[in-house]
Amino acid sequence: MAGPAVARDRSSSRRANLGMVLRLLRDEGPRSRARISEDTGLPKATVSNLTAELLEGRLIREGEAERDRGTVGRPGQAVEIDGSGVHGIGAEINVDYVSLLALNLKGEVTAEQRIPFDVRAAGPDATLDTTAQLVAREIDALRRDGGRVAGVTLATPGATDLATGTVRFASNIGWRDVPAIAGLRERLGPGAPEMHLENDAKLGALAEYVTASAAGVRDLVFVTGQTGVGVGIIAGGQLLRGTRGHAGEVGHLQLVPSEQLCACGRRGCWETTIGRGALLRYAADPGDLVWDPMVDLERRLAELRERARAGDARTLEALRRIGDNLAPGLALLADILNPRLIVLGGHFAFFGEYLLDGVTARVRERVMAPDAGGCEIVLSGTGLTGTARGGALLALDAVYQDPTSAMTPDRH
Amino acid sequence: MAGPAVARDRSSSRRANLGMVLRLLRDEGPRSRARISEDTGLPKATVSNLTAELLEGRLIREGEAERDRGTVGRPGQAVEIDGSGVHGIGAEINVDYVSLLALNLKGEVTAEQRIPFDVRAAGPDATLDTTAQLVAREIDALRRDGGRVAGVTLATPGATDLATGTVRFASNIGWRDVPAIAGLRERLGPGAPEMHLENDAKLGALAEYVTASAAGVRDLVFVTGQTGVGVGIIAGGQLLRGTRGHAGEVGHLQLVPSEQLCACGRRGCWETTIGRGALLRYAADPGDLVWDPMVDLERRLAELRERARAGDARTLEALRRIGDNLAPGLALLADILNPRLIVLGGHFAFFGEYLLDGVTARVRERVMAPDAGGCEIVLSGTGLTGTARGGALLALDAVYQDPTSAMTPDRH
Repeated sequence: MAGPAVARDRSSSRRANLGMVLRLLRDEGPRSRARISEDTGLPKATVSNLTAELLEGRLIREGEAERDRGTVGRPGQAVEIDGSGVHGIGAEINVDYVSLLALNLKGEVTAEQRIPFDVRAAGPDATLDTTAQLVAREIDALRRDGGRVAGVTLATPGATDLATGTVRFASNIGWRDVPAIAGLRERLGPGAPEMHLENDAKLGALAEYVTASAAGVRDLVFVTGQTGVGVGIIAGGQLLRGTRGHAGEVGHLQLVPSEQLCACGRRGCWETTIGRGALLRYAADPGDLVWDPMVDLERRLAELRERARAGDARTLEALRRIGDNLAPGLALLADILNPRLIVLGGHFAFFGEYLLDGVTARVRERVMAPDAGGCEIVLSGTGLTGTARGGALLALDAVYQDPTSAMTPDRH
Repeated sequence: MAGPAVARDRSSSRRANLGMVLRLLRDEGPRSRARISEDTGLPKATVSNLTAELLEGRLIREGEAERDRGTVGRPGQAVEIDGSGVHGIGAEINVDYVSLLALNLKGEVTAEQRIPFDVRAAGPDATLDTTAQLVAREIDALRRDGGRVAGVTLATPGATDLATGTVRFASNIGWRDVPAIAGLRERLGPGAPEMHLENDAKLGALAEYVTASAAGVRDLVFVTGQTGVGVGIIAGGQLLRGTRGHAGEVGHLQLVPSEQLCACGRRGCWETTIGRGALLRYAADPGDLVWDPMVDLERRLAELRERARAGDARTLEALRRIGDNLAPGLALLADILNPRLIVLGGHFAFFGEYLLDGVTARVRERVMAPDAGGCEIVLSGTGLTGTARGGALLALDAVYQDPTSAMTPDRH
């Protein structure tokens, strides 16, 4: 029931056509101008002008002569996405780290970094200082190599306000009404790229959707496995944000009997029974290496996994409890959203070999639709970088929607 | 991250343009050809051809000369949607009635009927007989008046399979794997219009979205108030179906402590604490008039409302319990989906004066996002006809997407 697609002026239709060509090359691969004309229905002369513009803007480059593809292919000089020109950056602030990942327009990783950081203890100002340094260094490095940065997406847990760039309420890092984007802009100064704020789970979902959509999946739920737990929902191929961008706030649902105090001030929130805090509490006592926020998270999780593999009873029991507490919430999400995939991230993916079978069986038992509505539970392959990767993708998506946004020189 | 919009041939682009013009007239009202050309960006000659086709197909008609609108308006003969030519029919099978509603292309109600009917007791064959008779009579009546029927949407509760027209599992009417559309087709014979099956809650959501979208709402959840309870979700202006169309199956979630046996065979499902069965159980004993499935539902609900208005303690207590049990589920939906509106249908709307304030207060307390994420709870204005209305709208939407589908003569 969408309204008419209205192209009110020549320049907006040019932008739309540039975007259509660029997305075609991203989604379907390199091809000749003749083939682009066939695929898009645009006249050959128009395609020729559009590709010339994209070449000049260094968003695409001349590729190899296209080979015959089956019987319909025709030879011709192909064009392809140029990975060297434009980059998107995702930066993530989470409970015990600040991280960054950059992708070029082809989706290749061009930078990746994670710093152990006690965000709650440091407070917003010091955290934004560190984040800004990380981002500024990367922008400088990319620009030094002749690249342009299309945008930066900052990810935080909790309720975030896209329009104003404010973290409204993120209980696990103790932030309330922190104008994070304004803070970053101030620290990065003029000449900084476009910056946006988004919730960590939504960006994780976007990162998963790149792989999943290539396999035809249009509906998925990504579950973060952090200190807090949230979900990012892709429904019918679209990121579900909700009216104020707060969709996916499942961490504080009351799903499992528990009296555990939550960072939000209530008791028994779901994330206190499945989040990283629960895993650590179940598996080890304070003072254990795995509790130390200054040790890199991946190392701490690897330590726990070694214990599990060595058959340590307490670790295995901890993982069993996590799985038992996780299943009812996943079943509920499957009943409400009927996704094709539920993708488990963070520590759920890290310990997938101990969780997946049990959780899958219990979800299948509970979901009302026959055959669990066709829903499959899988492990994320993005490790701890999914959120930052989703942020970088979102920054690049602005280029794919309107390539002209990346065709003007950087303001530095 | 949508792919390119590709128009592969002239006839598909003609269909797309016919649809664009028709939707423009529906959404923005009557206007001259010159104005259509401005609004769509299509050349005037193209608009002239398109409107000629739509006129010939009786989807639009010549209207009045357009008046000046502000300073930019230009006089000219306006065209407008023709309500007389094409109709959509929605038919609903629910626990204790079979109903039908027809809309013309302008969205005006052209027929409405509800028959008290004990669907579970009658079984699928007898129920489909009655439904087919109701639909056949209406098709005949509309055709006798020179109208065409663009399509029929059949609504049932439970898990439905859009592609095959099969009711997979609808516990409250006792149907499992009933090929409902094939059954209707067989009964209506050749010459019957297009028929599709959809879940009642999704169609209710579509009906609500017509009003809500006019007020700028893009995200809403419609909650059916029937014997069973399901939700229909509109997210970012799109109906959320899920991978197999089973999204919104909330009736069997375990949200409120209860040992009540559910029609699905489990105990404590949410709908056993808020559905019409719960309301009747809380408010009256078996044998009471309000329990009688052969008395029209609206009359039974009206009887209960009179008791409430007269201050009957048991009725008021029943409504208080319904509200108490309803709130946690609505809060959960608000946390997950962050809708702008939650629209209460069926008996929730009927008894809204006793439910709304309490439920709203409790939802606001529970939802994690500040200010309940901007979510407002409202009562449906469509009474018991929302689902059938949504079905009729869906049938007509096919015409708005591809007007040529309704421009060939009926096959009778």
